[in-house]
Amino acid sequence: MFGEIAGVDEGWIYPSRRAAYDADVHRALQSGIVGTGATGAESVVLSGGYPDIDEGSRLLYTGHGGLDRATRNPIAHQTFEAPGNAALETSRIQGMAVRVIRKVEAGYRYDGLYRVEESMLVYPEGKPFKVCRFEMVKIDKTVDALYTPIEAVVSAEVQHPDQPIGNPVPGRRSTSVQRIIRATKVSDWVKDLYDNTCQMCGIRLAVGKGAYSEGAHIQALGGLHQGEDRVENMLCLCPNCHVLFDAGALVVQEDRSLQLNGAPAVLNGKPADKLHVHNLHIIGDEFLTHHREAHQG
Amino acid sequence: MFGEIAGVDEGWIYPSRRAAYDADVHRALQSGIVGTGATGAESVVLSGGYPDIDEGSRLLYTGHGGLDRATRNPIAHQTFEAPGNAALETSRIQGMAVRVIRKVEAGYRYDGLYRVEESMLVYPEGKPFKVCRFEMVKIDKTVDALYTPIEAVVSAEVQHPDQPIGNPVPGRRSTSVQRIIRATKVSDWVKDLYDNTCQMCGIRLAVGKGAYSEGAHIQALGGLHQGEDRVENMLCLCPNCHVLFDAGALVVQEDRSLQLNGAPAVLNGKPADKLHVHNLHIIGDEFLTHHREAHQG
Repeated sequence: MFGEIAGVDEGWIYPSRRAAYDADVHRALQSGIVGTGATGAESVVLSGGYPDIDEGSRLLYTGHGGLDRATRNPIAHQTFEAPGNAALETSRIQGMAVRVIRKVEAGYRYDGLYRVEESMLVYPEGKPFKVCRFEMVKIDKTVDALYTPIEAVVSAEVQHPDQPIGNPVPGRRSTSVQRIIRATKVSDWVKDLYDNTCQMCGIRLAVGKGAYSEGAHIQALGGLHQGEDRVENMLCLCPNCHVLFDAGALVVQEDRSLQLNGAPAVLNGKPADKLHVHNLHIIGDEFLTHHREAHQG
Repeated sequence: MFGEIAGVDEGWIYPSRRAAYDADVHRALQSGIVGTGATGAESVVLSGGYPDIDEGSRLLYTGHGGLDRATRNPIAHQTFEAPGNAALETSRIQGMAVRVIRKVEAGYRYDGLYRVEESMLVYPEGKPFKVCRFEMVKIDKTVDALYTPIEAVVSAEVQHPDQPIGNPVPGRRSTSVQRIIRATKVSDWVKDLYDNTCQMCGIRLAVGKGAYSEGAHIQALGGLHQGEDRVENMLCLCPNCHVLFDAGALVVQEDRSLQLNGAPAVLNGKPADKLHVHNLHIIGDEFLTHHREAHQG
């Protein structure tokens, strides 16, 4: 139960954890994080049990673990292996939306969807044990509807001097490559079908207990290409093959063999097979033709 | 001579191609595109010789070639192999800034830096021969100073109904992974030093006559990590190793051996060597330590 819950609006307050549980908003009565490393995190509750930093549309969420059961005092480092922390790591890596619930005076308020932008093991000031800290940024639905990358929201906030968390110093955020990852139903379906295994080179990039792959549009969505966001127009690729495919260097021929820079493709040191296609995945040949003709002539 | 030319401001008009040439703004007297596939494009002139579409901050630039020398009529398809077109392809793939010069009544006006967002081989309406078309988007310096990705600029323009080129239909731009590539002096230096060969797995992704790699910050620049944009804090990686490294799955140990998900790394089907480091590249051990401790504890 990821993302929005049908019929539940932002701002609704549930009088108790039990009520939030029954509404599917946060499906655990005690844990602050619902989810596992294999699936990602559905929701988190900010209840003040750990030293979270909360500035509304951005917050630093502290993971779980490391506390003495009886005294609730820290006695060990937290780790990203603890189930809830592993869940938030998966959400970060896969670009998944996480529901945030805040403890307020009247109960537990559903505050909408956030993305996990960063994570880090860090010593809280003056403390002897590390905690897992997650930087979470609210998904602005107005902005997201236009598919502005999350990063743009972050930058827009630079102009508010009352938002000090990670306030980027101009010059600091210079990056040569920035990945904006967004889980969508279309890309999830394709990536799940192939278990994150690249349809071109066969690589599966394991990340902890999960794996990373990318949903690659065959006919690009942008201004010139005007492709469609459908599973028929999407491949499950590793980032390397995705880059080569988007650059037009790697092309799928009519017989679905792979050409790289005009020669039979060698990927990962061995001649590539044909494009691997699962029998549940009907790929639109017109999209492959578009890609080939747009790049190869 | 890429990017801005010192001492030359946007809006300056040169009375002739020769004057623009002498100022290093456009270093060719006849060609519309200065550059090669190996280096990328320095500059383009929009002179109306080809059917360009120009809407100010976004334009569709038509490549060169395919014309009869005598009559200047199209007699063949253009290709991405023609030197100027190959140059713009390299600029697109590498995220390089290209100077745009417009023919105006008084001469040739320098109109600032653009990025090549997309390219495509396409039949101009009703014409029998294909042309290379490049979608170029102006780099907004105010916005870029805050390191907002280019895509954000594009989305902002959606709100102007007088900007029809590639006006994204909401829903269309949904992408699962979006790469914002930005050439910087720091990343250029590192990628050139290694000739785009991954320091971890040794892969070099050839794209036409060039190659693709990514400059990866060791200590991330973002809010939590606050790393620095220096070559000491940067590696040349392939996209696959970059993703694994950013996810914290791939970690450089103190002896510079590589661990993947807690075991000696196997990359591309073979045990990985230690991190390959060129003797001109002094990597800051403190950054590697930060990365290791932020992810491994």
